[in-house]
Amino acid sequence: MNFVKNKLVVVGAGMVGSAVLNSVLSLNLLSEVVIVDINDKKAQGEALDASHTTSFAYSPNVKVRAGSYEDCKDAQIVVITAGPSLKPDDKLDRLVLADTNVKVTDSIMKNIVKYTKDAIIIVVTNPVDIATYYCQNNFDYPKNKIMGTGTLLDTARMRKIIGKKYNVDSKNVHGYVLGEHGGSSFTSWSDVNIAGIPFDKLDDIFKVEAHADKEQIDTEVRDSGIEVLKLKGYTSAGIAMSVSRLVKAILLNEQSILPVSSTLEGEYGISDVALSIPCVITSNGIENKLEIPLSEDEIDKLNKSADSLKEIIKGLKDNK
Amino acid sequence: MNFVKNKLVVVGAGMVGSAVLNSVLSLNLLSEVVIVDINDKKAQGEALDASHTTSFAYSPNVKVRAGSYEDCKDAQIVVITAGPSLKPDDKLDRLVLADTNVKVTDSIMKNIVKYTKDAIIIVVTNPVDIATYYCQNNFDYPKNKIMGTGTLLDTARMRKIIGKKYNVDSKNVHGYVLGEHGGSSFTSWSDVNIAGIPFDKLDDIFKVEAHADKEQIDTEVRDSGIEVLKLKGYTSAGIAMSVSRLVKAILLNEQSILPVSSTLEGEYGISDVALSIPCVITSNGIENKLEIPLSEDEIDKLNKSADSLKEIIKGLKDNK
Amino acid sequence: MNFVKNKLVVVGAGMVGSAVLNSVLSLNLLSEVVIVDINDKKAQGEALDASHTTSFAYSPNVKVRAGSYEDCKDAQIVVITAGPSLKPDDKLDRLVLADTNVKVTDSIMKNIVKYTKDAIIIVVTNPVDIATYYCQNNFDYPKNKIMGTGTLLDTARMRKIIGKKYNVDSKNVHGYVLGEHGGSSFTSWSDVNIAGIPFDKLDDIFKVEAHADKEQIDTEVRDSGIEVLKLKGYTSAGIAMSVSRLVKAILLNEQSILPVSSTLEGEYGISDVALSIPCVITSNGIENKLEIPLSEDEIDKLNKSADSLKEIIKGLKDNK
Amino acid sequence: MNFVKNKLVVVGAGMVGSAVLNSVLSLNLLSEVVIVDINDKKAQGEALDASHTTSFAYSPNVKVRAGSYEDCKDAQIVVITAGPSLKPDDKLDRLVLADTNVKVTDSIMKNIVKYTKDAIIIVVTNPVDIATYYCQNNFDYPKNKIMGTGTLLDTARMRKIIGKKYNVDSKNVHGYVLGEHGGSSFTSWSDVNIAGIPFDKLDDIFKVEAHADKEQIDTEVRDSGIEVLKLKGYTSAGIAMSVSRLVKAILLNEQSILPVSSTLEGEYGISDVALSIPCVITSNGIENKLEIPLSEDEIDKLNKSADSLKEIIKGLKDNK
Repeated sequence: MNFVKNKLVVVGAGMVGSAVLNSVLSLNLLSEVVIVDINDKKAQGEALDASHTTSFAYSPNVKVRAGSYEDCKDAQIVVITAGPSLKPDDKLDRLVLADTNVKVTDSIMKNIVKYTKDAIIIVVTNPVDIATYYCQNNFDYPKNKIMGTGTLLDTARMRKIIGKKYNVDSKNVHGYVLGEHGGSSFTSWSDVNIAGIPFDKLDDIFKVEAHADKEQIDTEVRDSGIEVLKLKGYTSAGIAMSVSRLVKAILLNEQSILPVSSTLEGEYGISDVALSIPCVITSNGIENKLEIPLSEDEIDKLNKSADSLKEIIKGLKDNK
Repeated sequence: MNFVKNKLVVVGAGMVGSAVLNSVLSLNLLSEVVIVDINDKKAQGEALDASHTTSFAYSPNVKVRAGSYEDCKDAQIVVITAGPSLKPDDKLDRLVLADTNVKVTDSIMKNIVKYTKDAIIIVVTNPVDIATYYCQNNFDYPKNKIMGTGTLLDTARMRKIIGKKYNVDSKNVHGYVLGEHGGSSFTSWSDVNIAGIPFDKLDDIFKVEAHADKEQIDTEVRDSGIEVLKLKGYTSAGIAMSVSRLVKAILLNEQSILPVSSTLEGEYGISDVALSIPCVITSNGIENKLEIPLSEDEIDKLNKSADSLKEIIKGLKDNK
Repeated sequence: MNFVKNKLVVVGAGMVGSAVLNSVLSLNLLSEVVIVDINDKKAQGEALDASHTTSFAYSPNVKVRAGSYEDCKDAQIVVITAGPSLKPDDKLDRLVLADTNVKVTDSIMKNIVKYTKDAIIIVVTNPVDIATYYCQNNFDYPKNKIMGTGTLLDTARMRKIIGKKYNVDSKNVHGYVLGEHGGSSFTSWSDVNIAGIPFDKLDDIFKVEAHADKEQIDTEVRDSGIEVLKLKGYTSAGIAMSVSRLVKAILLNEQSILPVSSTLEGEYGISDVALSIPCVITSNGIENKLEIPLSEDEIDKLNKSADSLKEIIKGLKDNK
Repeated sequence: MNFVKNKLVVVGAGMVGSAVLNSVLSLNLLSEVVIVDINDKKAQGEALDASHTTSFAYSPNVKVRAGSYEDCKDAQIVVITAGPSLKPDDKLDRLVLADTNVKVTDSIMKNIVKYTKDAIIIVVTNPVDIATYYCQNNFDYPKNKIMGTGTLLDTARMRKIIGKKYNVDSKNVHGYVLGEHGGSSFTSWSDVNIAGIPFDKLDDIFKVEAHADKEQIDTEVRDSGIEVLKLKGYTSAGIAMSVSRLVKAILLNEQSILPVSSTLEGEYGISDVALSIPCVITSNGIENKLEIPLSEDEIDKLNKSADSLKEIIKGLKDNK
């Protein structure tokens, strides 16, 4: 056994990539972080900026630097953030963005597989379900070692909104947003609860005045990203912390249950499309996909989400 | 507004008190920790031992010292751990221990109220429900500012046991152990779930061979403390981390839901006895007691637990 | 005594302000962080983005929101990051930037003092020594409660560069960059050492081939900011972590020695100008300014740095 | 490359071993910790007690369990704490303790080398320099992969005492205690400084009344352990945090400079004996031993310390 360092490579030094860089540093879990970008200067700038304060008493003691795909060789985790993202005034057709980013992802994966099929790959590039599906099914890479951030952030947002409404720590709000990370996502309301109190009984027990409306929350969750986009011009902090959550779960082999995107293989009768359901995350990546109980209506929504994504995938395939 | 430091006082420098001392230090949240014991030498030894490594790069930068009750004056939290505890070979009658420790607690509270009625008091001394009841009802101290660790550790143990059985992070196991911290505690099985999957469906979804048996788990949880007692001679680490969890929730005003012991005032039809139900913890102490939905059988168990504790309280009262 | 929450206000939601926001969150020390900006939408966007992931297991449990100056009322720390900053292609005259940002700072301070003279104020706005001087000397605010980030980041950079050269943790590199945060800053080489080994003996003991050149290091340190500016377009991560270091030292009353900017009052024969020398930082702000031993040459450099800053201050004053 | 988990084995479940167990858990860096003891029940009790609270929101998510030497196979670090230690009323002859613990250490090392020569071994068992020497020179184990805690804790104590005297964070106090961890240790006063201010100038600059006396500090440092022993009956917290500091430096490949015990090979003209000088610690263990500048008097003390230890080693050898 050789000592294996906790090394992570971030591909892409845009707003998301650089936020991921700074977020994983604060985990204090890694001994080396490398950032790779076509624009090597941008990568160097981000690495330089992030590396300066190691000397402070509590700063994480990580080697941070700009690098190349060769760095994936002994990395334990690779995070793919590259590719254009939605803009506040985006008129971009969804399919066009998908096409562009599948090409970006294709080129990145070809570079990664030259050096490793061992690292766990976290896909962040949007549309994340399309990119994840593409990565899992075209490079003979172990499927369990690839996951998309999917509805992990949407789930966090849903819990935050509900926690705030009832004046409780959102860590005590449970339940998931499932399906596509995008327009067809939905909350599995049948599971949502605070400390075991089902959603429908919350108003009674917490004695709040205004009733919490499911549809309104669903809309607020779905629009959170757009809202941030409109207000600050891009999203970065939330998605970066979502990646950090996965990184920690992987590095510490947590067996934690988190909703991430992966190609289904018959779960809920769905296959050949990637979307988010709760998965057990370990140092092997996705250890287990959980077919949690859903209402008929929710299963229906999941299927519609799958169909919507398949449409896009088909569009892509036809284009080749 | 004056700057108020995050100061905590631990009363009692025995195995539990000293474990609490070292555990809260690692929170990296406090600027001053004081330990008080009748045996001032023991307190000094614990403080000295714990204080030595501040100079290390990542060590918490806390002032640790032995002190006196006067230190409660500007403390935000006081933890009461003093009094004899159960021994592996304990033949001690439960009532006798209760009597002894109520006397110990009485003397401690009389000393604390000389200096503060503002600090949040965390009672650890056993039988913790009896001690908590006594503290909340005899010193004109704001009731919400006193809580007992109650079934917080029992709840953690239950989740750990179930998480281990199904190979998932115990942070994804939900549900509570309620009632007395002791023989009459029980798991609220109607609430127990992993990621929204009810207990009864776990075997199916996780495909484990041996069925998890509720009674067996209940017994294992209830015997965990005794087991540790038998194996290592005393319990310290688990209870210390439970106290740390409460300290963090209080200092950061988390609104976190945790099962702690407090005097009920009509919840589930019970009053005039302290036991554990889920509570919202903030910097005000117990902000809200949650009457979570329980099955009839569980409400029955809670009442029996209450009766059993009232029996002891009555025994104490008669002795005065 | 009332429970005082650990509350921090960031003024300015630009690249630096938003990086500060995300960096202080990861301290896991604060219960409330408020961000204020003339562009309220930008502040809301940053707060929203940063607040989403509270529900994750290890995420800091902080209330993050956009607010107004009124939030300074019960804040323990206020960080001023507002005002234009240098751009990669900056042709901006130093005096012009100073004039602009003194006006920005003036308006901010007038708003802050409406609500508090208790909070510790950390000035980040550049030219930081000018802004700090202005804040300390025009609002009857307790001088010790205002500090500029000064050469704290320059010091970190110097240590990082030297640590990297000799293959040691930069936490073991000691010594300071002093004077102006800018062109006239300098390393106090007479103090620089690794684990007590003076700079001039490092080559011998660490057996590295190429000699480390003081002037080259000085230049590299001084150009670090510009280098990051050129490579990524702005600086954010390094300065944000510097602010976080100060925030922790203040909140935990660390008595830590860090080089920050403040108005000298006779130290090294200098007064009526703000620049950086090592200071003891506590919950009172600057507890003590340390006149550490410097060589004659270094004292000369410090005086030149002071003169250079006084020139600018004079320019400002004449303009009024 | 296979994913290698951060696994640590603690040998010995006494007061020190169990404190080490709980201290390394709070690092939040390990995915598995195993504790081994001849008294398997004690090991099981410690593991059980420490493992219960994983389900809490911020608790480290580590698998903790009792195990056997076979667990060293894929461990990255093994900590040896086994063997009797000094007691408050100890009449034990130093040589007798050495003899006993060399036997204990011998048996442990024979068990470890059955499974690994890759793990970094941290020796804590006293007399630590004797035990370290024995481990490094009798099992054909890579010498750099074995280190004793040596004067790491003594150094921390010295810095703490000086920091307290001058009201500064002890993280800003530099300098080392060198030589034997025991009676012949000494502070390298020529190096001691606060923020670059030499020891002899501290009184002037910090304006404290009573002069700090070197001999008095030396004595206080040397007696710290005994003092803790007398006051609380054993030492645990300080040494446990010292081990944690090394564990972090190793796991994150920090290149940190820390004084640890190892067999000298000509440094300061000394060889064939283990004692503490500052070393660069990486994931390879001891990467570099630093011959920092010492005064003649200090080199003399180091040689006397070496002689004193050689005396004991000789006593041991003769006994075989």
